[in-house]
Amino acid sequence: MKVVVALGGNALRRKGEGMDYEVHYENARRTLENLLEGGFFSPNKKLVITHGNGPQVGMEFMRHFLTKERFPMYPLHALTASTQGWIGYILEAHLRALLRNKGIEREVATLLTMVRVSRDDPALRSPSKPIGDFMDRSEALELSILTGLPVKEDAGRGWRLVVGSPRPLEVINAPLINSLIEAGVVVVAVGGGGIPVDEKFSGVPAVIDKDRASALLGLEVRADVLYILTQIPFVYINYNTPKQKPLREVGIHELERLKEEGHFAPGSMLPKVEAAIDFIRGGGKKVVITSPEYLREAERGEVGTFVLP
Amino acid sequence: MKVVVALGGNALRRKGEGMDYEVHYENARRTLENLLEGGFFSPNKKLVITHGNGPQVGMEFMRHFLTKERFPMYPLHALTASTQGWIGYILEAHLRALLRNKGIEREVATLLTMVRVSRDDPALRSPSKPIGDFMDRSEALELSILTGLPVKEDAGRGWRLVVGSPRPLEVINAPLINSLIEAGVVVVAVGGGGIPVDEKFSGVPAVIDKDRASALLGLEVRADVLYILTQIPFVYINYNTPKQKPLREVGIHELERLKEEGHFAPGSMLPKVEAAIDFIRGGGKKVVITSPEYLREAERGEVGTFVLP
Repeated sequence: MKVVVALGGNALRRKGEGMDYEVHYENARRTLENLLEGGFFSPNKKLVITHGNGPQVGMEFMRHFLTKERFPMYPLHALTASTQGWIGYILEAHLRALLRNKGIEREVATLLTMVRVSRDDPALRSPSKPIGDFMDRSEALELSILTGLPVKEDAGRGWRLVVGSPRPLEVINAPLINSLIEAGVVVVAVGGGGIPVDEKFSGVPAVIDKDRASALLGLEVRADVLYILTQIPFVYINYNTPKQKPLREVGIHELERLKEEGHFAPGSMLPKVEAAIDFIRGGGKKVVITSPEYLREAERGEVGTFVLP
Repeated sequence: MKVVVALGGNALRRKGEGMDYEVHYENARRTLENLLEGGFFSPNKKLVITHGNGPQVGMEFMRHFLTKERFPMYPLHALTASTQGWIGYILEAHLRALLRNKGIEREVATLLTMVRVSRDDPALRSPSKPIGDFMDRSEALELSILTGLPVKEDAGRGWRLVVGSPRPLEVINAPLINSLIEAGVVVVAVGGGGIPVDEKFSGVPAVIDKDRASALLGLEVRADVLYILTQIPFVYINYNTPKQKPLREVGIHELERLKEEGHFAPGSMLPKVEAAIDFIRGGGKKVVITSPEYLREAERGEVGTFVLP
């Protein structure tokens, strides 16, 4: 069975935690142990792990902004490449240690990944993807004035910088990723949704949504299942209201209807739901949306939202 | 023929140029075009490209230092991982564009690479590897007082931060790199000398010399030739004196004698000479030390220092 596991939210950093290296390091270990306990490294699973970089690329951006008197600021695509480096390193280091400790003989590869987007994508002209930490309103407005970048309120949780998030069209190294997972290699790729490039491999200053990129990769490598790991065990309707109710099994037609009704917050659950719909519509068999802690229960069908054709 | 090409010095940024993204981008393109003209992408060549990160990891360190009130500082090994990300991305983007433009059907892979070192390596207790930009004496002393890191005068060219540079013992993903180049994939790996880790894949705060790591990789994948690309077309004896003379063909015994006589500057030509000796002593056939502009002439044996058994 071929699976893509997209790590996001609390897989690398739990709500309220700081941006310390050690925070990422410990959370990555916990998440990968959850994958191990869920049976994801068993010989019958061909596995690609992808990850987000919203808070991290925001931090890189701020580091560049705050040191711009001393060093040139780098474009957003290069900053996503940076986060592919250090987050990928953390994941590969834990994967190798974990597999060796369990006597599982599998090679691990972390691949820098570019993803093709269109320079004509309208999303580039109307920034919507939040990056970096939540700020209060006054700090957000000050930063926006200083950087010229827009800020937006995000799902009632505070204010964040927003950047353009174009639709991913092609994972450039998908054929290579596929060869490697077919050979049993555990692959880490498409970090931060991939580095956005145009048809000439020239960088596009934007951040691709990692769930959409993971869904695309899933279709390109003909994965059976896409796992989208997030902070909560289920997708909910009427989330954060007294009528909140978890979705268990849901077909894409019903899911589209619920999406139209506005149940899923933009910049939060909405992109995951859209990625799930994309993957199933493109021919995928199943999408599982849950939190890393419940992977074992999800494998038994007890916890998690299962999106089906 | 299997070759390792180690890019350093002016391959990514020429003397006197700034640290702009565009500087790295344009220099990388020029260097890879030089490789193309030198015939390095011909079907009979199995190719790994490695690169240094001295100035770049120094910049990352300074960005973290200068923003430490706002974000936590990350360890040096994570900063090398970052540079593997963005420098690797620049190289892969150009490689893909160049190969496609020339109608050469070869896949490209940029692999995050850890390199095992020993925590008992005495080099960790006596920092010697310069990173970052050259500074004048007063700026260097001020920075050293602020960061607690040592600074040293480097080859008469100014002052730099120095960090521990342990001996590379094992390129963790060498077997994978070898499988990929055997299959015709052009591989970018071991950036910045690799991310230093101990036997448990836990990061070691240091920077490995990229030429030594490239020599080790060359032996591990049984490369025939190691190319060390630098700022000057030859290795010289009596460098920067009226008696300066280029070395053309030199055996490792003679090279060792010249090294003992102090012809090669620490932190500059010395690590390249030592890497060359390591590679030949370990069984490699030839090391070529030259600048990227002369690769075509080097392939004809006209320019470059050739280190032989």
